[in-house]
Formats: sequence, C-alpha cells, structure tokens
Amino acid sequence: MSNKRIVIIGGTACGPKAAARARRCDPAAKITIIEQRNNLSTATCGLPYYISGVIKGEGALVARQTDYFRDVMDMDVMVQTRAAAVHPREHKVDVINLTTNGRASLDYDKLVLATGCTPIVPDWKGKGLNGIFTLSNIPDAGAIRDHLTGSGAKDVVIVGAGLIGMEMAEAFVARGLRVTVVEAMDRVLPALLDFEMAAHLEKHLKAKGVKIICGQPVSGFTGDNGKNVRKVITRDKEIEASLVLLSLGVRPDASLGKAAGLTTGATGGLAVDEHLRTSDPDIYAGGDCVELVNLITGKKTLVPLGSTANKHGRVIGTNVTGGSETFKGVLGTAIAKVFNYNVGRVGLTESQAREAGYQVTTSLVPTFEHATYYPGARDIFVKLVAEKSSGKLLGGQAIGTGDTAKRIDVLAAALTFGAGVDDLADIDLAYAPPYNSAMDPLHNAANVIRNKQSGLGRSLTPVEVKKKIEAGERFTLLDVRSPAEWKAQRIPAGQVKLIPLPELRKRLGELNREEEIVTFCRTSIRAYQAQRILDGAGFKNVKFLDGSLEGWPFETESGAPA
Amino acid sequence: MSNKRIVIIGGTACGPKAAARARRCDPAAKITIIEQRNNLSTATCGLPYYISGVIKGEGALVARQTDYFRDVMDMDVMVQTRAAAVHPREHKVDVINLTTNGRASLDYDKLVLATGCTPIVPDWKGKGLNGIFTLSNIPDAGAIRDHLTGSGAKDVVIVGAGLIGMEMAEAFVARGLRVTVVEAMDRVLPALLDFEMAAHLEKHLKAKGVKIICGQPVSGFTGDNGKNVRKVITRDKEIEASLVLLSLGVRPDASLGKAAGLTTGATGGLAVDEHLRTSDPDIYAGGDCVELVNLITGKKTLVPLGSTANKHGRVIGTNVTGGSETFKGVLGTAIAKVFNYNVGRVGLTESQAREAGYQVTTSLVPTFEHATYYPGARDIFVKLVAEKSSGKLLGGQAIGTGDTAKRIDVLAAALTFGAGVDDLADIDLAYAPPYNSAMDPLHNAANVIRNKQSGLGRSLTPVEVKKKIEAGERFTLLDVRSPAEWKAQRIPAGQVKLIPLPELRKRLGELNREEEIVTFCRTSIRAYQAQRILDGAGFKNVKFLDGSLEGWPFETESGAPA
Repeated sequence: MSNKRIVIIGGTACGPKAAARARRCDPAAKITIIEQRNNLSTATCGLPYYISGVIKGEGALVARQTDYFRDVMDMDVMVQTRAAAVHPREHKVDVINLTTNGRASLDYDKLVLATGCTPIVPDWKGKGLNGIFTLSNIPDAGAIRDHLTGSGAKDVVIVGAGLIGMEMAEAFVARGLRVTVVEAMDRVLPALLDFEMAAHLEKHLKAKGVKIICGQPVSGFTGDNGKNVRKVITRDKEIEASLVLLSLGVRPDASLGKAAGLTTGATGGLAVDEHLRTSDPDIYAGGDCVELVNLITGKKTLVPLGSTANKHGRVIGTNVTGGSETFKGVLGTAIAKVFNYNVGRVGLTESQAREAGYQVTTSLVPTFEHATYYPGARDIFVKLVAEKSSGKLLGGQAIGTGDTAKRIDVLAAALTFGAGVDDLADIDLAYAPPYNSAMDPLHNAANVIRNKQSGLGRSLTPVEVKKKIEAGERFTLLDVRSPAEWKAQRIPAGQVKLIPLPELRKRLGELNREEEIVTFCRTSIRAYQAQRILDGAGFKNVKFLDGSLEGWPFETESGAPA
Repeated sequence: MSNKRIVIIGGTACGPKAAARARRCDPAAKITIIEQRNNLSTATCGLPYYISGVIKGEGALVARQTDYFRDVMDMDVMVQTRAAAVHPREHKVDVINLTTNGRASLDYDKLVLATGCTPIVPDWKGKGLNGIFTLSNIPDAGAIRDHLTGSGAKDVVIVGAGLIGMEMAEAFVARGLRVTVVEAMDRVLPALLDFEMAAHLEKHLKAKGVKIICGQPVSGFTGDNGKNVRKVITRDKEIEASLVLLSLGVRPDASLGKAAGLTTGATGGLAVDEHLRTSDPDIYAGGDCVELVNLITGKKTLVPLGSTANKHGRVIGTNVTGGSETFKGVLGTAIAKVFNYNVGRVGLTESQAREAGYQVTTSLVPTFEHATYYPGARDIFVKLVAEKSSGKLLGGQAIGTGDTAKRIDVLAAALTFGAGVDDLADIDLAYAPPYNSAMDPLHNAANVIRNKQSGLGRSLTPVEVKKKIEAGERFTLLDVRSPAEWKAQRIPAGQVKLIPLPELRKRLGELNREEEIVTFCRTSIRAYQAQRILDGAGFKNVKFLDGSLEGWPFETESGAPA
C-alpha cells in the first residue's frame, strides 16, 4: 500500500477499468480519472443499436455512474475536463475544466493514457456540410438521431463498408431509411473478409434492401446552398444523400502523448511494451490509442476494440500499483451482426496472409451449425487459411445465419497457441445434436486442408473457375448433384455437364480423359468424392470446386435448362 | 493403390466413417462393412429427440442409405449380419446372416472393430419385466415409442441421472408423461457437474415438473403378475412406474476382440495405440469399444461419443490404407440440452480433479452470455477449475439458458494446448454486443482465479458457508446489495447483515473487526469489491461468497424481512 498518485486520462473503457483494478490492488492510492465528456464507462460498441432503437435510451450505454467511482471506488472523477498537456519530467498534467474554463495542474506518480481514437475524416470537398457525421461516442449518436428526426432525412449514404458501416446499414434500415453503402475497395468488410465471403454478405445486404457500391472512391460532397449535404460524389457517380455517415476507420488519439515526447510507432499508435508501459517509465497507455502486436505476424497493428481496452485496463491497473502483468497481443478477432448474418474473422484473411508473404492453403466449407436432423439448423460458411508448408493456422472467417461466433472463438483459442490444422481437426469439441454435428465445421474445414496437403484433394476456387468460364476454356465443369437439384439451381456455363454421383462409376465413358475436369455439388462433399472416383479410374486432371454451389458467389440459373 | 481387403465390423459411426475414408485414400481396396441391424450410419445421438417427437420419423436418423455405400463408395455392405468370431492368425472373420442364418468366413488384410457399446443393466430383481428399457439404437427407441402408445403408460421412472437420463427426462415430459429421475449419487449429472452446478440444474428440472430423487440406489422392480413393471424399489422408497428407462451408462462392447485374444484395458475397453491399432498389428479399433487417453490426467478413460467415433473413423481409414494419422485423446467434453438449460463440461470437475490428486483453485461466475445492454441476454453460470500451484486449467462447467456451448468449446481448445488461467484471460475472443461482453465470462472466471492466486481475492464456497450457518457459527454474512434487492431475495440466516456497497466505506464502524466477515451480492462482483474495501480498512478476516446469491444453491427467502 502507498499514497501513490495515479492519474488516468480517458474514461471510456480502458481508463475506468485501469482505475478500478488499481483501486482493488492498492486501497490507499490516490486515483484521479479525467474525462472530457459527461460520463465514465460508456458502452460505445452499443451506439449502432441505440441509433436503430434496439437499445432504448442513452442511459443503457452508461455501464457505471460517476457516483460509483466516487463512493465505491474512492476516486476523484473529473468529467467535462480535458487534459491539455503532460509534463513527464515534472510528473504533471495540465487540465482544463470545459464548463468553467478553469485550469489546474495535477501531480502524478504514475500516469495512464487511455485517450482512445478519432474517426478518420479525409480532406474531401464539402466535408463540413450539415448532415455529414462520424460515430464514435454518445454525443455523435445523439446528433445523428436528432438529424434524422429533425430533417426528415430519407436517403442515407454510408461511406466505408467496415464494421461500423455494416452495423449502421442495419440500424438505418431498421429506421425505415434508404441506405447506400459506398466502398472504395472491391468488396464489403475488406479488412475482414476475402472476396468470396464478402460476396455472400453483399447478397444478404442487397436482399435486405441495402444498395452496395464497391470500387468507388469518394471525392467529395455537394449541398444545397452549401449548407445541407445533398450528394456524395464518387469517381463515376453522384449519389443522393440527406445524411452521410463516414465510417472509414479510426486513428489512435496519441496527440497528448506525442506532444509530451512519448514514442509512437509507424502505425501512429503510442508504442508500449508487454507491460503497456510507454517510452516513459512512469506513463502507461492502453486501449485504442496504442499499437498492438499481431500474434500471427508478430508485427505491430491497430485493432481498436472494447475487448482489448478492458484487458489493457486490468494489466495497467496491476502494473501502476506495483504488480506485474503483461499483454501479449491480438489476433484481430472481430465479429458483427449484419442483419441476419453473423460475420466473424480471426487471424489473417487469405489476402492479408498473401500480403504478409505466406504461401497458403485454404478451405471453403458451406455447412450448418448443428446436425441437420435436429430442427432449426442455420447455415454457416467457413473459410480457413493455413500456411502451406507447415499447416499452421493463419486465420479463419465465418459468415451466415448460424452460430459463427462459436467457431471464431474456438479458432481464436487455437490460434493463440499456434495450432496447426492437425491440432484443430482433433479438438474435443462439445457434441450433441442441438449444438453441433459429430464433426464440427472447423474439423471439416481443417480436414479439407489436410486432404489438400496430402494430395488427396485438389481444388479450384470460385474465382479461378469463373475466370476459366469467362475465358471460354475447354474443360468439364462436372455437376454431380441430382437432376432435381440441377433443375432448381445451376451454374450457367457451356462447360457444365451433369452426372449424378451415384451414376458416376457407370458413366465414366461419357467423360473426356484428356480434358481438365472440375467437379462440384452443393457443398463440395460429393464433389470431392467424385474427384476421388475419377482419380481412382485413372483420370489425370481432376479438381473440385471449393465450396461448390453454396460457395459460388456468382450468378446461377434455375428452372428448365435452356 | 492395392487390392487390400479391409473388413469393418460395426456400421453406426466409426465404421462407416473409416470405410468412407479408406475408400477415398485407396480407390482399389476391397472394403466390406458388417452391421447386425438394418442400417449403416445411424444418428443414435438423435434418439431422445425422435422419442420426444422433435425429430419426425426414423428415416431422419439414417445419415446415409446403404445404396450410397454400395454405389458411390463401391463397398460390400452386409447388413443384418453378425460377426461371430475373429481369427487373427488366419486373418478371417466368421459372420452369420441374421435373416437366413447362413454362415460365411471373410478374409481380411486389415480388420476394423467398431463394435460400439452396450447399456449397463445391473442384475436387479425384476429387470426382465415388461416396460423396462434401455436406449442405444433405433429399435430400442421404436420399442419405447410402441410401449408408450400401446400401454397408455403415464408414470415414467428414469434410473440414472446421466446424459441420456437428462435428455430423456425432457423427451418424456414433452410427451405429457409424469417423470421421476432416481439417482444413486447425491446429484444429477454427477460425472459432469459439481454439486453447486448440479443443484441449479435440479431446480430447473423441478420447475419443469420432473421429480428428482438423489442418493437412492435402486434394488429392483416389481410388476403385476410378474409381467408388466409397476414399481421401482429403491433403498427407502417404492416409486410407481409404468415405464422404466435404465440410463446407467454403457460398457464397451469388446467381446469380439477379447475372444480373439486382443488386449483390453482396465476400463474394459479395447486397448489401442495412438494409431488406433490394437495389440494385433492388422486389427484397428475405434469408437465406443476402445479406451481413450484423458488428455488432462494422461490416464485411460471411457468416453463413448459420436464425435470421437467420427474422428476415429478418419484416423483408421487413413491407417488401414497405408497412411499415418494419430488420435491423441479426449477432454471428456460433453454437452446436453436439458429443457431450457444448456449444460456442458470439459476436462475435470472439481470432484474429479481432487480425486485425481490435484490441489485446485476454482471460480464460480454467474453472468450473462452477452452485454446486458443489448436485448435478450440469457444467463450462464460458469465454474472453472485450475491447478492451485501452476494455474494450469483442469476443467470447466457451464450451465444456463444462455450460450454455454461456446464457452465449453473455447475451453476445450485451450485445454488441448495445456492453457493456464493467464493464457485464458488474454485470448482475443470475438466481441460485439449481440455476442459477448467486452470481457467474456471465461475471462472473468480466469481472472477470479488469478485474483485468488495473488491473494487479492479470498472466498468460501456456497457449501462452506451453508455449513457455517447450520453450525450456528459466529460470523457476519455481509450482504452488500441494495435494499430493494434485499427485499426481493435473501439468504435466510441470523448471521446476515445488509450494508449496501455505496455506503460501506462510511459504515465500517457497524462491523465487528474481530469476527470473520463473508461478503456477498448478486454475482460476487460487488462482494469482491467489498472484500477489498474491508481489507483496505484493516479488517483481517474477510472473504467473499463464491458466486454469491446467483450461485447459492440453497433456499432463499423473499418479501418483508421477518
């Protein structure tokens, strides 16, 4: 115990958590929290649901009242107060009371920077127009709600198809608005999903009435009399808008630390060691303002999330009171509810893995969350990415109406320990028909990669097959489903030939042994079986279509064949 | 490729999976499956749901038709055929066609035993009476359904509160029957749950109309005219019964292998190595008939589950065709839907850990599946068991109406890699309000153990506190909830004193510094905080009640205090 003076700047997640932990570790410390807005401990992750109306009232977003920090935690709480400058040598923080404009200087023995992040707003023409918003705190959410109520806005344009953009698309649709999402990259959630996964989400968004425009960088906005926003200008288009939400990501708010001479990394975040100590031994930092280690690549990264901020708070609270805890890094785990889809990612996507220089093997498994003979099984679609040579897992994605969160979290646990596909395939996951199939989708996804590693399975991706079709290549796209399935949905291509799997062994003579054959079915199970039958019959150039028809992101046709 | 003759005995899960994998690995092998009943590839885990009516029709329980194995997998399928004897030296299996009584002998190069298990039926008086059933295959389920329809049975007694017993309690209630469960041990699901967890499940079962009688060994049955069962006789009771289900667990069906001279373990299961090879190099075995390694204790165990049987099938299919795969062991992961409760366990329970000789630290965390500010958060109750000295995780249990399956599976992944509580607390699990809280319940449960390890947190279990109350010990059971919470529900004991947490710092004078103080609240969060406040104020003997009121398995009172 001590009379150590601990000053914490920032009251959203990491700050209050660090304060509470410090108090529990050191009952005698003098702890002060400084927060520029009205409340500590706010659930900013709930903002989209507050705007949609799913969460009623701002009050629900305040996890702990200020009184709690004063009466129970015995802290000084300075709300509506801004930290203006840190003086590391003097161990002082200058603060300004935003209500009275009064200035003061606080002494500290240990300082905690939990200054969060700020939304990215590019210097686009017209960005100051009325009706253009970002969303990162309760006042932002209030302003959006007020604008919607006050202006009668009907056309919303979301710029940026990241996590907030996707969650807000649902929120705005829930409020009865016409929603367009504009994204500069070629797909939605580009940091979380590879193309074929994103394509499925895009279909779902469209089915919910959201207009998606990808590959269109925004250049600015125009308004009426230069006052209220009316149009979003992209490279090729002008899109009507009476409200614009900019969701282009965030930047760590490291300005206070930087001005005080603390080291920042190439990412722009404050640099901290495993103990979350900055370059000054008496200053710790955590939450969205610091850079993190990506546990897969070992490189520095920014992943601003409340989950990490809370873990940071505990580590910092321990360390500023004389204890020793560490935080090793993150996996980039992320999840979002996007209408009826549960969309998750952990580790690296295939694109990110290739950019990081890995040779990869992947699997695409469209399946169900639990045994299909038990009612109510919802679909999930899993993509697994592993290092080609070693089989070490690099990441996974899961989307669908079913329980993807469980699979993402199991992968997160496995990736934490450097698991390979062999390990994953054997994890003793809980099985009963209401919860899973005897083989979890992750087991299957790992086994598909193992089959490819051993040479038993060979596949092409949907994008690769689509290219061959479009190039008019000579090859056979062998559909091994039943005639009824064929009638209901087909890949429209001249290369397609139907031989139902049960007839395949008898109808080998109908296939050209000299030509490449790509088998497909609904999910790839029969397609892989067909590949093995053809291999066994001496065919030399057979592959299956990864994910088959369920994984096919391109157009299909149905009804009687032309 | 070869013309290797592979004979597989047993067609439920491991057998067909081994056959299919063997075919994919070796297109030329001659593969034969022998099954004594009508169908291969049956989903016996679905039987309770077929009896309840949730699953309509037996057909849904047959995953693959026999034709599929013949036409697509190119195998010989011998259904209604029993393997009578194995001759390892001659590499022959004698079979009997159960329809024609015809006998034959099959040559094999590699043999696979997937002979499953048989329900345990003790030699109790009256066990042969009509209306007494076990449940392990589709004909069993059919017989139970027929008996219910034909006899007008109303009173069902389930002997044994294991997994099948619990699932069947729900199934019988769904059919409008009066259900009593009789269990020799002191609690339901004794192999899966420690007492305080089982007590919560028991409350839920009672709320659903199931009568639970624990601590009563059954000694026999009586019937009318010695024909139809009428009563179950226990040590102290006679219980009306027009249908009795014996769910006392299963024994590995190792008889065929044993008769052929194969080694069995002390568990009674066939002994196999990591490659699932028996003591005969040309005979492999998998599924419910073999013993497994418990990955926590390193000891041999029996955990008959379809999930393991399927994994075994793949390993065996690879190995009998010249490949090399291994199966390392299991964690005893189990899950069951019991009415609205999702009940799971992985690793060792506290009782099992202590029996195995571990010193343990545990945590009890009653909480919610996701952020409570997002609608629809259902309750979950987590217990974590760790080795005291090292913090190494030994096991976990989770019950409640919320998503326990995810937490069990994350723990399964972590336990696979020998994780400790420090590792668990830092896993980067997916967070968004519809899926989780910023800190997952497992993070909190791990941190509670870390707090105990560091000496910050000290607790008593509900059982320990109950004993102190009953012994009339002098101590203060300090309730730190609000007066409104106190009015709604209280622990009925003279030792209880209410001081709401926000007032605690001001009312320290009301507490006796010489007496032991045990704090509690609703979930333990405030109780732990109160313990730290009292520690900080110089009190020397303060603990908190683990799991607090939500975790309290004993009676409570409500209304105005007496």
